[in-house]
Amino acid sequence: LMLFSGRAHPELAEEVAKQLGIGVVPTKAFDFANGEIYVRFQESARGADCFLMQSHTAPINKWIVEQLIMIDALKRASARSITVIVPFYGYARQDKKHRGREPISARLMADLFRTAGADRILTVDLHTDQIQGFFDGPVDHLFALPLLADYVAAKVDRNKLTVVSPDAGRVRVADRWADRLGAPLAIVHKRRDPDVANQVTVHEVVGDVEGRVCVLVDDMIDTGGTICAAADALFANGAEDVIVTATHGVLSGPAADRLKNSKVSEFVFTNTLPTPGELELDKITVLSMAPTIARAV
Amino acid sequence: LMLFSGRAHPELAEEVAKQLGIGVVPTKAFDFANGEIYVRFQESARGADCFLMQSHTAPINKWIVEQLIMIDALKRASARSITVIVPFYGYARQDKKHRGREPISARLMADLFRTAGADRILTVDLHTDQIQGFFDGPVDHLFALPLLADYVAAKVDRNKLTVVSPDAGRVRVADRWADRLGAPLAIVHKRRDPDVANQVTVHEVVGDVEGRVCVLVDDMIDTGGTICAAADALFANGAEDVIVTATHGVLSGPAADRLKNSKVSEFVFTNTLPTPGELELDKITVLSMAPTIARAV
Ligand SMILES: Nc1ncnc2c1ncn2[C@@H]1O[C@H](COP(=O)(O)O)[C@@H](O)[C@H]1O
Ligand SMILES: Nc1ncnc2c1ncn2[C@@H]1O[C@H](COP(=O)(O)O)[C@@H](O)[C@H]1O
Repeated sequence: LMLFSGRAHPELAEEVAKQLGIGVVPTKAFDFANGEIYVRFQESARGADCFLMQSHTAPINKWIVEQLIMIDALKRASARSITVIVPFYGYARQDKKHRGREPISARLMADLFRTAGADRILTVDLHTDQIQGFFDGPVDHLFALPLLADYVAAKVDRNKLTVVSPDAGRVRVADRWADRLGAPLAIVHKRRDPDVANQVTVHEVVGDVEGRVCVLVDDMIDTGGTICAAADALFANGAEDVIVTATHGVLSGPAADRLKNSKVSEFVFTNTLPTPGELELDKITVLSMAPTIARAV
Repeated sequence: LMLFSGRAHPELAEEVAKQLGIGVVPTKAFDFANGEIYVRFQESARGADCFLMQSHTAPINKWIVEQLIMIDALKRASARSITVIVPFYGYARQDKKHRGREPISARLMADLFRTAGADRILTVDLHTDQIQGFFDGPVDHLFALPLLADYVAAKVDRNKLTVVSPDAGRVRVADRWADRLGAPLAIVHKRRDPDVANQVTVHEVVGDVEGRVCVLVDDMIDTGGTICAAADALFANGAEDVIVTATHGVLSGPAADRLKNSKVSEFVFTNTLPTPGELELDKITVLSMAPTIARAV
């Protein structure tokens, strides 16, 4: 059993290695002048069961290519098996043709990993479960729910807690939370206001949130637009407090400012992606998936 | 017949389209906030023979992934055939394991294109011919030699001209030039000076260059280190003038400064890669491969 890591988020790999009582295999990896990536492992992988971790964070395309190149090198180094660990699966949102002449990039990624030499994929909270079917081999699908829900349950009085989905199209995640915590469910529904000519969206809260502590849950927070608007709607409807929690803190573009300026009392993520330095704030909590991943390995 | 282009170097695709008397198919392509690429073609590709051009320039990994995603979208849009045009083939220099536990990235790239849906590859002056064998399908391999050599022949008195290889390991390119121009051949040989403890390399010129106009030829100029050192050696050995020519002007890192400061009178490239703005100088000539590519299409 050997654990390898790309350069995107080595801290997570180090943590997983520590849990396993092993070290991450030292690897030489750098960019040539024209941006092509060079990779070489410092130890023999012959006959080993190899786990190769890479976080699909920015610059995401570069880190995906690096992971593919590392898989190729492992294959040619006679690894016995290659398991690709992608704590956050890049391109997961492009999992179908929303319109004609679009790619299905989530499927493409699965095929690229397979072609490079991956036998197995280990990932956390896929954007949709269907992506498991894209890979021609076993997919180990881990969940952050136990970790996140236990943290929230320990903090909040259960009698005051309401689980909220920020989007009517994605109630599935919130539903699992409500089940686990035995809490009532509410939904923020984005609606085009029929009385206004230009399409202003109104955030309608379905369910009772007055005086409640709302836990807004999603699989990922990217630019933070939807989630912060949903939080505002909850406060406007009398919520006593709002906590936001998601497995993947993508946190790109305007996310940092939005999170800082939001009235939300706490944001809880896992470390499937590195947290931007400017977001190392008191109200941002990052829980580690390393023990869960190590157990799966 | 339809021509598509990625965002890396649209000018070359426009030129090829013009030569063919068609337009480049309008395509919506942008980066999402987290760097994932979105692509959608504005016209139906159903039943068409599709040519998809992308230049593997910086940021090279991003443009490779974009091309893969575009191939996927073409495949799913029922294109009849998909020919990938890569004027400069990225990762060509990693075409073998130079040491153990290295990848063979040039082969990986061929496999990735195939997996995404490419039927055929059209490329210019591969770093090594073996790369043709990496792709599981036909490879159209174009040469810039006629274009570059005709330009040089029209400029320089043939009786004074000597073709020079900047590297003893890559005489093949220079050999073809010498053949075509009926000119004598010289070689710059990098040698470790045995008298000096720390490994200083000496550039030894094999062949007579005194009073000659030397044409230093290579397939690509990347950081310009080798080629500028070779030119210095030629001048030191009495060359009257030195012209440098290469198919691919990669021109990364310190290349711009090196080319500017060099005593070389002219650098001649083709437009398989875009020329960095700061290198739009009098002594840099860029010849267009568009007619050659259009003829092949
Ligand atoms: N990286 C991304 N960032 C934002 N939106 C995306 C991204 N990738 C795909 N999408 C779009 O998100 C929508 C799908 O969102 P959802 O239905 O919530 O999965 C589609 O319109 C996609 O084109
Ligand atoms: N993008 C690159 N830039 C510079 N050197 C590279 C690049 N890719 C591969 N190499 C190295 O170049 C050497 C091969 O050069 P060559 O024998 O001239 O093809 C090997 O040591 C490679 O690891």
